[in-house]
Amino acid sequence: MKKSIGQQTLVYPHPVFIIGTYDIKNMPNIMAVSWGGICCSKPPCVAISLRKATYTYNNIMLNKAYTVNIPSENFVKEADYVGIVSGRDVNKFESTGLTPVKSTSVNAPYVEEFPLTLCCQLLKTVEIGLHTQFIGEIMDVLVDENCLDEKGKPNIDLIKPFCYDSATKNYYSIGSPLIKGFSIKEFKSKK
Amino acid sequence: MKKSIGQQTLVYPHPVFIIGTYDIKNMPNIMAVSWGGICCSKPPCVAISLRKATYTYNNIMLNKAYTVNIPSENFVKEADYVGIVSGRDVNKFESTGLTPVKSTSVNAPYVEEFPLTLCCQLLKTVEIGLHTQFIGEIMDVLVDENCLDEKGKPNIDLIKPFCYDSATKNYYSIGSPLIKGFSIKEFKSKK
Repeated sequence: MKKSIGQQTLVYPHPVFIIGTYDIKNMPNIMAVSWGGICCSKPPCVAISLRKATYTYNNIMLNKAYTVNIPSENFVKEADYVGIVSGRDVNKFESTGLTPVKSTSVNAPYVEEFPLTLCCQLLKTVEIGLHTQFIGEIMDVLVDENCLDEKGKPNIDLIKPFCYDSATKNYYSIGSPLIKGFSIKEFKSKK
Repeated sequence: MKKSIGQQTLVYPHPVFIIGTYDIKNMPNIMAVSWGGICCSKPPCVAISLRKATYTYNNIMLNKAYTVNIPSENFVKEADYVGIVSGRDVNKFESTGLTPVKSTSVNAPYVEEFPLTLCCQLLKTVEIGLHTQFIGEIMDVLVDENCLDEKGKPNIDLIKPFCYDSATKNYYSIGSPLIKGFSIKEFKSKK
């Protein structure tokens, strides 16, 4: 039996994306975003939503470029911190000790210490309400060499991404593998 | 050191959303989607992306409404299956034995057995490329009574959501809590 809990932005799991941008003085900045996800296969695109009040919003409007960085569990404190304080007040690379590196494919910095980076060129902005959605074409994906398996494929156990639960405001690790996708091509009901 | 692996739709984690719609004959249908996420807080909105070739695409265009259902781990096989076969060929509620229930807030069916449902009214469509993005206003959220804690809050340990890894095509459970969000308000660099 289901109970209505009203209008809420509740799904499981929310991702934790760290958005890298340059500001008007070309200073690198990062912020954390959980409203987003892949939105197209061809061209490969990722969507993130930001409030106009954020420093990153202005930086993206300025440069039409950003990186989406996936932090590993080891950096959950850094990820939380950069989602709280503003780049207007603090140089977040300096305070966290993270290292900004300029992407070679777009005009935006990525986080050297994080295992995965999507280098994005702004394709479209969509006004929704409190949030503006940025749709970015993924021009390149960068992976830490230590997070690739022997076949050169990104390995989730080495990347150690995590997720966010908006109901409790806790971050959670990723657990164990369940089943292989695209494997259940027929189904016999248990009923 | 980072290595370029080219243009890919790779983030961690991808969600697994089961989209409920009615077709032109008012038959309930479900399909699995991993391209999506929350995209606005006010109004509360969720985005999902679909290819025009899908049965669900036409159903949403017809009814301007759909549900986003979050399955629990126990239903990972059902989730995988409904992402492979088309509602044009198969009545997926019948073959899986899942139960369609008409939402009272939008003209779409939800899955009784799944712990969480977002009832969505289509707000906007965004043409991107291979995928069209549907932005839906979340009119109501339904949670299984057994998945609420003593304060009436959705509990991730009871909901048991899972996620998808597009690099290996495996589904993964959610792991352990890491830290409380919005807790790291100051940061001293380790450097």
